[in-house]
Amino acid sequence: MLKVDFLGTGGAVPSVKRAMPAIALHWDKLFLWDCGEGTQREMMRRGVGYGSVEAIFITHLHLDHFLGVFGLIETIRMNTQREHLQVFASRGLGKIIEAMSPSFMRRPDFIKFEEMREGELYRGKDYSISAFRVEHGGNAFGLVFQEDNKRKFNEAEAKGKGLKGTMFREIQKKGFVEVGGKKIKLDDVSWERKGIKVVYSGDTQPTESVVKAAEGADLLIHDATFGEGMGDEAEGRLHTTAAGAARIAKRAGVKKLVLTHISCRYANAEKELLSEAKAIFKNTELAKDGMEIDVKPEKEKD
Amino acid sequence: MLKVDFLGTGGAVPSVKRAMPAIALHWDKLFLWDCGEGTQREMMRRGVGYGSVEAIFITHLHLDHFLGVFGLIETIRMNTQREHLQVFASRGLGKIIEAMSPSFMRRPDFIKFEEMREGELYRGKDYSISAFRVEHGGNAFGLVFQEDNKRKFNEAEAKGKGLKGTMFREIQKKGFVEVGGKKIKLDDVSWERKGIKVVYSGDTQPTESVVKAAEGADLLIHDATFGEGMGDEAEGRLHTTAAGAARIAKRAGVKKLVLTHISCRYANAEKELLSEAKAIFKNTELAKDGMEIDVKPEKEKD
Repeated sequence: MLKVDFLGTGGAVPSVKRAMPAIALHWDKLFLWDCGEGTQREMMRRGVGYGSVEAIFITHLHLDHFLGVFGLIETIRMNTQREHLQVFASRGLGKIIEAMSPSFMRRPDFIKFEEMREGELYRGKDYSISAFRVEHGGNAFGLVFQEDNKRKFNEAEAKGKGLKGTMFREIQKKGFVEVGGKKIKLDDVSWERKGIKVVYSGDTQPTESVVKAAEGADLLIHDATFGEGMGDEAEGRLHTTAAGAARIAKRAGVKKLVLTHISCRYANAEKELLSEAKAIFKNTELAKDGMEIDVKPEKEKD
Repeated sequence: MLKVDFLGTGGAVPSVKRAMPAIALHWDKLFLWDCGEGTQREMMRRGVGYGSVEAIFITHLHLDHFLGVFGLIETIRMNTQREHLQVFASRGLGKIIEAMSPSFMRRPDFIKFEEMREGELYRGKDYSISAFRVEHGGNAFGLVFQEDNKRKFNEAEAKGKGLKGTMFREIQKKGFVEVGGKKIKLDDVSWERKGIKVVYSGDTQPTESVVKAAEGADLLIHDATFGEGMGDEAEGRLHTTAAGAARIAKRAGVKKLVLTHISCRYANAEKELLSEAKAIFKNTELAKDGMEIDVKPEKEKD
C-alpha cells in the first residue's frame, strides 16, 4: 500500500488553511514531492517522520515549490545520524544551495544534489520514481511513482495442475512447464498484478505529456489553481483550471483525481472548484492539508 | 505605544509549538526583526498584516533567521501594490537573492537590499532602528528600536507662569524665555520624556555589547537557547543560557526581559528555563508564539 500525505495544498501564496506544495509518499521509504516553505513543520504537525526522508523531488524552481528544502535538510542533519539526503531539482537549486552554503552551520555536502531530468530518477526494490516534462515555462516536470507489475499465482489452480517446488521458477522463466507430459502455460496458473501508479502534474497548463504519463493511473494529482471563471488567468500563468484537470483525468483513464495547488482566492474551493471538476470526472477529490490517501494494489483493495 | 508580536520563538529547529525566529514591531509602520521559515504564514495566522511590512532586519545569516524572507517578499509583491521592500542583512543574503532571482516570478529588483552594519539603519519620524555587533561568530548583530526623547510641557505650570503662543517655541530653542521681566527656564515648565527603547540580542553568547546597547531599555529580548545544565553547549555554540540572559538584563538595568530562541529540547521551558532566569532577574517572561507585549512610554503607562 502506498500512503500519500498531502502536507501542503496551496499555490503561490499560503493561507491559514493551506501550506505550500508538498506531498509525502510512504512506501518502504519516505519521499517528498515538492517541499514548499514550512514543510518541515507540517511534517511535525502531521506526525510524518522527517528523519526518514529518503529523497526530495522538486518539480520546478518557483519559490513556493522548493523553499522548504533548506530548513528541512538542516533539521535532518542536526537531529539524525543521516550521512546525506538526496535532492532532485533543476540546476538552479544547486546554485542557490551553493550561495547559501555559508549559512549551513556545517557540511553543505550533506546534500546529494542530482539534476532533474526526464526518465527514471530513483529505483527502489519493487518500484521506481521518474519524471516527465510539463508545460509551465522553463524546466518543469511531473512525477510518477510506479510499482513494478507482479506475477501472482492462483495457488489452487497451480496445485491442481501438479505444479510444485522449482517448477514455479521454471514456468516464470520459460512461460510454460511440462507436468506429466502436459504443457501448462504461465497464464493458466497465474496473472500479472499491475503495480500501483501515482502521478503528480506539478504546475502545468493542460498538456498531453500528463495524459500519457497518467494513463490508467490509480491516482492523478493535478494542478487546479483556478476555476473556470479564471480560465484566461490559468492560461496566462501556465496553470490548469479544475475542469481542465478533470478533462486530463478523463482522457488518461485514471481511477481517481485529486485537485491541488489551490489558489488562496478560493475560500470555498469545494463549491468553486470541486463541483466544476466533478461534472466532468466524477471520482475527483479536492486536496486539503493533512489529507491522506491509501493507494492499494488490485485484488488487495477492500 | 510600541506593540511587539512574537511570531516565532524557537531556535535552530522548529517544533509544533514554536516557529522560527521572527518579531514584528508595530509603530507607525510595521518592521520585522528576523524572518525565519514560515513567518508569512505566522503573520496570516496572527492577523499581522504582512502587506504593510516597511522593512525586514536579519540579525545574522543562519538559516533559521532568514529563510522566510523570500516567500514573504514574493507574497507581498504578488498581493499588494508595493513598489519595493527594504531588507537589511549581511552581504551573503544578497548573493542568495541573486542566485534565487530566476525563481522570483517577476522583478527580483522588488527587493531593496542594504547591507547590515553597526549604527542607525532606519530613521522614522520620531524613532530609529539601529544595529550593534554581538558574538555569534562572523557577522552577527543585535537590534535597537529607540523612540526619540520628547519635551513635554506641564501645561498648568507653564500657563501659570504666563507662557503662551510662540513662547513655547522660543523656550525650547533658547532654553529660557522672559515673561514680564522674569526669566523662566525650560526645565521649570517642562520635562523630557524618555523615548521607548526595545533591544533584541539576536543569537549571541553573553557579551558586553548587549549590556551597553540595552542600558535602561524598556524591554530586552535575549537569546536563551539553553538551560544551565547545558552551559557548555551554550558556550560552544555561541548562545546564551536563560540565567546568562538574566545576568545581562540585570547589569543593563532593563525594565523587562523576554527569553527567546528556545531550543526544541525544552518541552517545559517555563520550568526548565524561566525559573532559572527569574532567580536572577525577576521581571522575566518566556516568549511564546503569538505573545504580544505593549511597550508604553513613561507617564502614559497604566
